[in-house]
Amino acid sequence: MTPAAERILARDPRALARAATWIENRHPEAEALLKELFPYTGRALVIGVTGPPGAGKSTLCDQFACKIRAEGKTVAIVAVDPSSPFSGGAILGDRVRMLRHHADPGVFIRSLATRGWLGGLARAAAEVTMLMDAAGFDVALVETVGAGQDEIDIARLAGVTLVALAPGMGDDIQAIKAGMMEIADVFIINKSDLPGAAKLERELKASVGLAHRPDGWAPKIVGTIASQGEGISEALAAAREYSQRGADPSRQAGIWSARLREMLRDRLLDRIPPEEFTGLGREVAERRRDPYSIVHDLLAKY
Amino acid sequence: MTPAAERILARDPRALARAATWIENRHPEAEALLKELFPYTGRALVIGVTGPPGAGKSTLCDQFACKIRAEGKTVAIVAVDPSSPFSGGAILGDRVRMLRHHADPGVFIRSLATRGWLGGLARAAAEVTMLMDAAGFDVALVETVGAGQDEIDIARLAGVTLVALAPGMGDDIQAIKAGMMEIADVFIINKSDLPGAAKLERELKASVGLAHRPDGWAPKIVGTIASQGEGISEALAAAREYSQRGADPSRQAGIWSARLREMLRDRLLDRIPPEEFTGLGREVAERRRDPYSIVHDLLAKY
Repeated sequence: MTPAAERILARDPRALARAATWIENRHPEAEALLKELFPYTGRALVIGVTGPPGAGKSTLCDQFACKIRAEGKTVAIVAVDPSSPFSGGAILGDRVRMLRHHADPGVFIRSLATRGWLGGLARAAAEVTMLMDAAGFDVALVETVGAGQDEIDIARLAGVTLVALAPGMGDDIQAIKAGMMEIADVFIINKSDLPGAAKLERELKASVGLAHRPDGWAPKIVGTIASQGEGISEALAAAREYSQRGADPSRQAGIWSARLREMLRDRLLDRIPPEEFTGLGREVAERRRDPYSIVHDLLAKY
Repeated sequence: MTPAAERILARDPRALARAATWIENRHPEAEALLKELFPYTGRALVIGVTGPPGAGKSTLCDQFACKIRAEGKTVAIVAVDPSSPFSGGAILGDRVRMLRHHADPGVFIRSLATRGWLGGLARAAAEVTMLMDAAGFDVALVETVGAGQDEIDIARLAGVTLVALAPGMGDDIQAIKAGMMEIADVFIINKSDLPGAAKLERELKASVGLAHRPDGWAPKIVGTIASQGEGISEALAAAREYSQRGADPSRQAGIWSARLREMLRDRLLDRIPPEEFTGLGREVAERRRDPYSIVHDLLAKY
């Protein structure tokens, strides 16, 4: 075993931080390390927390972490942040949350920023979660901001997916709920003391009643007031109830099948030098060549 | 020229609808058609409209369409919807909006749903927009729901990107604004009669003042009340002002360079039968093999 892998298994915070950076930056060391750590994965309870902006996901995750720590268990939070497509930098920091937990080696928090095109964030989130799993954290919370396809992909990687909603979130809430209806194992109605909570619960109950999931699970609906710590135990209990039914083997196999495709696609493309595309992009932008012929020629070449 | 392409150039609504379905489903006819139509693209003003849920993007697009029609110009709306990752079906329909414009051949509306993993939605949105461009619509509005990476990718495909916000959208709004700060050519403060509009405008002005874009453009900030048609002309004028500065050739070349990579990646993967991945996914889920070794072997094989 390499020293880097040993330090991960020992949950060394600096080694974890460095490995997460390797993963984010697609550093060559990352793959060798993850390959070495893979046999140690599959033990953590991975809880995905997603939902629209304003639902209070960060506060929920913070409260889950406190609760898990109070049980004497360890927890990692992988927070997926929006970022600037120009600069590639993370916007939200871990700083605020770090302050609360910084002296506690039983909590590890890592934010991931969007990197470029093509699902790179879902890959990085999955790999950093594997890292935390291998490191022996009892629970990994994977928190995503927003409700796009990326977030849905990330939520699907979790063993159990919590969708957080809050009352009175505007016109598009119907669409969001619908888009997330079938990935939610547990619905959290956060800020459940606000007007509209009962209405939201009724709507969710009606939707849950109509859904027929292949695994036969009827998603639980739990009310919380995360800012006051209310309902946190119940939400965590619902997540555990789902996960303790035993992992759905076809779900796991499906997730890995999709991830293998993604990994292979990345590797295939790595073989073509990026400079090749720069000049070709200009030719298409100037309408000198059509993109379909170019791709045809590249396929013949590589 | 094939009859299908001729009918697209003649803006035949049925031919457009069928071609969009081909694109969504990755039907083999789609590529040949797009290749044939490519020389006719690059003339439409493509306006991306994005922003968080609840900002009123649909209403804004609807009002833009009315305004553009009132000028005697034609308009296509490509609406990117969230969808169920299990069923793959669209959630929001075009139905409500279709009712308003259904008798008008100068408006074409198409919703696209999320299809599986790996940026398929951004590809479909780009190709349907090309189709509308080739068909000779003066303006193509590309509307995305949500604020994930997919939406940002889609927004980047546009010649000009509008980011719609509304006052009082909760805690995560700072993050959303930051993530979208550098893709926004124009900020729309919709529902600008609501409390908090002035504060949002101040915050945006401060952020815009700090940003240094490579193209030297200072994003405009326009207030609208889309539900009452207020500010629509001003928002459209701001979009046109940006686009009339002349397309940034490096932006266009960069977009095409990224799209070529994506297209090539798709084609490379098409060569591997999907069944190959199903069994391998199971092996990884059961920890019988690690994914990195599998990808290594697949690369050697193909």
